[in-house]
Amino acid sequence: MFQGGWFGKLLRINLTDQTSREEEIPEELLKKYLGGAALGSKILYDELAPGIDPLGEENKLLYTTGPLTGTDVPCASRLNIATKSPLTGTVTNSLSGGHFPVELKWTGYDIIVIEGRAKKPVYVVIKEGRVSFKSAEKLWGLNTVDTQVLIKENLKDLNVRISCIGPAGENQSMIAAIINEVRAAGRKGVGAVMGSKNLKAVVVRGTQKVPITDEKRFKAGVRGVLEGLKASPMAYPVFSKVGSVSAAEPVSAVGCFPSNNWQNDKEVDWVEKIGAAGLAESAQSNNSCYRCPVSCSQVRMAKKGKYAGISTEGPEFETVYSLGSNVGVTDSAAVIAADRLCDELGLDTISAGVCISMAMELVQRGLLTDEDGLDLRFGNDNAVMRMLRDLAYRQGQMGSLFADGTKRAVKILGENTAMYAMQVKGLELPAYDVRGFKAHGLNFATSYTGADHNKGYANQEVFGMPVPYPVERLELKGKGILTKFNQDFCGLFDTVTFCEFPASFMLDSFQKLVAQLISGATGLDFTEQEMWDVGERLNNLCRMFNVREGFSRKDDTLPERLMTEPLKNGLSKGEKISREDLDFMLDEYYEARQWDSNGIPTPEKLTALGLEDTIKDLPQKA
Amino acid sequence: MFQGGWFGKLLRINLTDQTSREEEIPEELLKKYLGGAALGSKILYDELAPGIDPLGEENKLLYTTGPLTGTDVPCASRLNIATKSPLTGTVTNSLSGGHFPVELKWTGYDIIVIEGRAKKPVYVVIKEGRVSFKSAEKLWGLNTVDTQVLIKENLKDLNVRISCIGPAGENQSMIAAIINEVRAAGRKGVGAVMGSKNLKAVVVRGTQKVPITDEKRFKAGVRGVLEGLKASPMAYPVFSKVGSVSAAEPVSAVGCFPSNNWQNDKEVDWVEKIGAAGLAESAQSNNSCYRCPVSCSQVRMAKKGKYAGISTEGPEFETVYSLGSNVGVTDSAAVIAADRLCDELGLDTISAGVCISMAMELVQRGLLTDEDGLDLRFGNDNAVMRMLRDLAYRQGQMGSLFADGTKRAVKILGENTAMYAMQVKGLELPAYDVRGFKAHGLNFATSYTGADHNKGYANQEVFGMPVPYPVERLELKGKGILTKFNQDFCGLFDTVTFCEFPASFMLDSFQKLVAQLISGATGLDFTEQEMWDVGERLNNLCRMFNVREGFSRKDDTLPERLMTEPLKNGLSKGEKISREDLDFMLDEYYEARQWDSNGIPTPEKLTALGLEDTIKDLPQKA
Repeated sequence: MFQGGWFGKLLRINLTDQTSREEEIPEELLKKYLGGAALGSKILYDELAPGIDPLGEENKLLYTTGPLTGTDVPCASRLNIATKSPLTGTVTNSLSGGHFPVELKWTGYDIIVIEGRAKKPVYVVIKEGRVSFKSAEKLWGLNTVDTQVLIKENLKDLNVRISCIGPAGENQSMIAAIINEVRAAGRKGVGAVMGSKNLKAVVVRGTQKVPITDEKRFKAGVRGVLEGLKASPMAYPVFSKVGSVSAAEPVSAVGCFPSNNWQNDKEVDWVEKIGAAGLAESAQSNNSCYRCPVSCSQVRMAKKGKYAGISTEGPEFETVYSLGSNVGVTDSAAVIAADRLCDELGLDTISAGVCISMAMELVQRGLLTDEDGLDLRFGNDNAVMRMLRDLAYRQGQMGSLFADGTKRAVKILGENTAMYAMQVKGLELPAYDVRGFKAHGLNFATSYTGADHNKGYANQEVFGMPVPYPVERLELKGKGILTKFNQDFCGLFDTVTFCEFPASFMLDSFQKLVAQLISGATGLDFTEQEMWDVGERLNNLCRMFNVREGFSRKDDTLPERLMTEPLKNGLSKGEKISREDLDFMLDEYYEARQWDSNGIPTPEKLTALGLEDTIKDLPQKA
Repeated sequence: MFQGGWFGKLLRINLTDQTSREEEIPEELLKKYLGGAALGSKILYDELAPGIDPLGEENKLLYTTGPLTGTDVPCASRLNIATKSPLTGTVTNSLSGGHFPVELKWTGYDIIVIEGRAKKPVYVVIKEGRVSFKSAEKLWGLNTVDTQVLIKENLKDLNVRISCIGPAGENQSMIAAIINEVRAAGRKGVGAVMGSKNLKAVVVRGTQKVPITDEKRFKAGVRGVLEGLKASPMAYPVFSKVGSVSAAEPVSAVGCFPSNNWQNDKEVDWVEKIGAAGLAESAQSNNSCYRCPVSCSQVRMAKKGKYAGISTEGPEFETVYSLGSNVGVTDSAAVIAADRLCDELGLDTISAGVCISMAMELVQRGLLTDEDGLDLRFGNDNAVMRMLRDLAYRQGQMGSLFADGTKRAVKILGENTAMYAMQVKGLELPAYDVRGFKAHGLNFATSYTGADHNKGYANQEVFGMPVPYPVERLELKGKGILTKFNQDFCGLFDTVTFCEFPASFMLDSFQKLVAQLISGATGLDFTEQEMWDVGERLNNLCRMFNVREGFSRKDDTLPERLMTEPLKNGLSKGEKISREDLDFMLDEYYEARQWDSNGIPTPEKLTALGLEDTIKDLPQKA
């Protein structure tokens, strides 16, 4: 029996009748799925009937930690939110950092399963072994910053850590995030699920130390992480100083930084305007997650002008795209202000920005009349600020059209607008113009949760990081196997839980280090290969969840624009991913995954991964 | 020797050389000045040389508590900030509530004296008997909300309480406030003094209980307060439910709610628009100060539109005037947003609003060209939001002109604009059109710190509260003695420290209750008369501070407009306070105070109050 890493306990909270109960997590499940994304997905697979409404009472919202969360290993204060996404209809895992994740773990529960729906707004407090349900009627409507302040005052306990939704989640906007401090489990509408349950916040205060069974082995792993970080040319030299926005430079250099809703029709030096250079004058300080020596989160602040004094943790690289270049905004202060507003409203910055950019392009093309008078021109930051609020409140014409993302906007506006909806499976695209980054493209098309860069990030294309195969970003061949590698790689850090950035900086040693760390923590023996298996198992399990929901090869696609309009400028000029290109990559990918040509896992593969239980859910052959 | 109420200790902090030392406060000083405003003023009187620059290194910033602060008596979580005001050049006391005041007291110090000037931005932490100086360079520029969040994270102590400045204080705007949580020690530029010292924040965590000598007597006093609150028709029925904004109705009813920079030229139902009625739909919750059963602080939130989701504690009545009616804004959501912005920037809402209204009137009259393109029309809330930021940053034309208040704007713009500067001694006027409230007018003219309603509030004129004399608001006669009564009354609650609102609800019993409470706390015997003496001593001492600075009858005046332009509408139509009216009231007031006809205290009076030390500072007779 293991003695560390996990507590082996799950807390099941029922909001409908306001009860809770503690459950043991079977040791076999822990060993096989570890925690975080994989264990969360497994529970969802077993407990959610196919076809349920993600915003209905039957959906569940899981807070899942892993065997490293809350231990002394750096970079492991990560929380996974698992649920069925209203935005994509797929299973999803959405992660965030900060201090909440470790505090949650220290309550003594590895996993919180939230079920049902409260009749009136509530928040849940988990503290000193007790679960209490508190009215959130007086908190309903408050932004995420004020919510956290007031809960602390109301509880007369300033030491709790809080995960909550803002107005966007309350109004069940399908692009709503869940926020702790200012960290977002941002994507795929997890905030809407929380809102649909009338749950304003989860409040935790933990007092239990995570036990470590084999201290020596564990500490060796910790040293390995610290050495890995030290050796990385990215961690301290770049991420500590500039954060994720450093990616703008290499992405821009090859002409793949999307702008003006992916029209990329104007040659603007985005790095200079709103990238690391443009944001340099706004540098204020760092604010690290619990026990993170890298501290990539940059506190930036507009120093003058109409946004003077507005600060944010960020904007991250993705936001510099979504609320900057992609809406044509060249003023870094405006990006800072929009980023902060999204955090306060509880909106996913990526999806929100892409909704706004789509509205702007439709107005530009005369396909939509701006009845709200927002003046939706690319580059108009006032319109961005206004429309963000409208999205969170579903107010006005634009709020009504876009609060549930671009895919649903097309449903309302008509198929002639589909060309301008930059989404896959309903999830709006992150900041990589995949016409010049083929592996990113294949990942966007196949990730189990739509166009999610974090679920299979192709570091190799952007930063030239090592993999066992040669990688050329414009080459189609080899991208199937590379994408499988990346997706399985990402599956592990989402599962154990460890931050994506440092994990990626140790691309060649991460699985080995994790095996060492969780072996040390639990006293069980994990191999490097088993770590790869965990990632692959997660991807197959999630694929099966989606297959059961009706997903198949037809859904593994890219926006029409990327398949038909070549890039107009820069080093990737002329590039696109045609239908044929995508099909070529999909074939290779499915083969690498040992899935059939329709993208359905084979019984053999499922059996090999210990997923025999899911074979019954394979589509019946005609 | 006393054993309770006070700790009898003062902490002296020198920012120049970053040292601190503990001093005993002589028992005689404590008995005579008690604490808070009176003891703060006494220390300033003794330690500040006449004529010093309030923003120079020689000025001192005092955090002073009283014998009730941090005890179990309700409504006593109040902090007094004492300093020489840059805005008025007078001595000043500025108070705020919340949780910071009790936490400060619990550090074991009754008073913190902050001296000198740090070379670079710092913040000071007082915790566990230690004082530490921390760099605030990475906090400089942050708004007051973010500052508090980041300090807690940086210190890894979420339990500290923080008093800080925002950008307005940093930029030494003379209308800058000091903020703890969202409570402001708002007026008279105390935030600029803090900024001039390069001091971003004072951070405290207290662990010492305030000793109570005679528990029985003290508890009887506590019961008296609770009974007094219960008996009051204002406390629970009105203030708990609506807060200070309830005053809008009686003030408006008699036509004395100032609008459009006191032009009062449009008949608008302000109560309906932005008063209790107008704000009703924004009601969210309450957030009480430590141990306050009234909990008057109303959390309100804009529910829809362009300010949706912006919440504030408030707006208080004064702000409904200054950022509402007085700038012509009829949208309660805009008032909420402006109130919140002031808290974040660390601006006094009253002075800021009156600066904006003056700018608007100058533009209206063609006396000023709006070069910033703010569109400074009365009622334009966008212009208000923009100009607030410009004031805090001294940016643009309006920021340069008005960041130091209306009196200094006149100095730059010329005497022809003086008519539109609604200020006394440099302090912008609060929400009582004194043309119809004569005692308020006399208090504005004579208060030791300019047009400060809190230093001599005439409850009797607004709410008909009892005094030993008949009061008719439009009558001049009797207002001298009434104003002395009110100013001495207010002097006590600022001193012991107790919140103004509940004190006012117990206008006929407050002095007696306080005598009982501090007798119980300290074990000394205080009489009701001695409590009146404390208030009178404070007012005489502060008058002498100002006399020493050159103030006299000539400075006890009102804005020209109020003396020459009669009210145009409502129940007080035709009323003004002419030069002769004011002189009549001043004569009566000086006589009631036993001051000479030039408003200078007599040696006899000073002697009777135990202020013999100040006689040397009386002007030499010609």
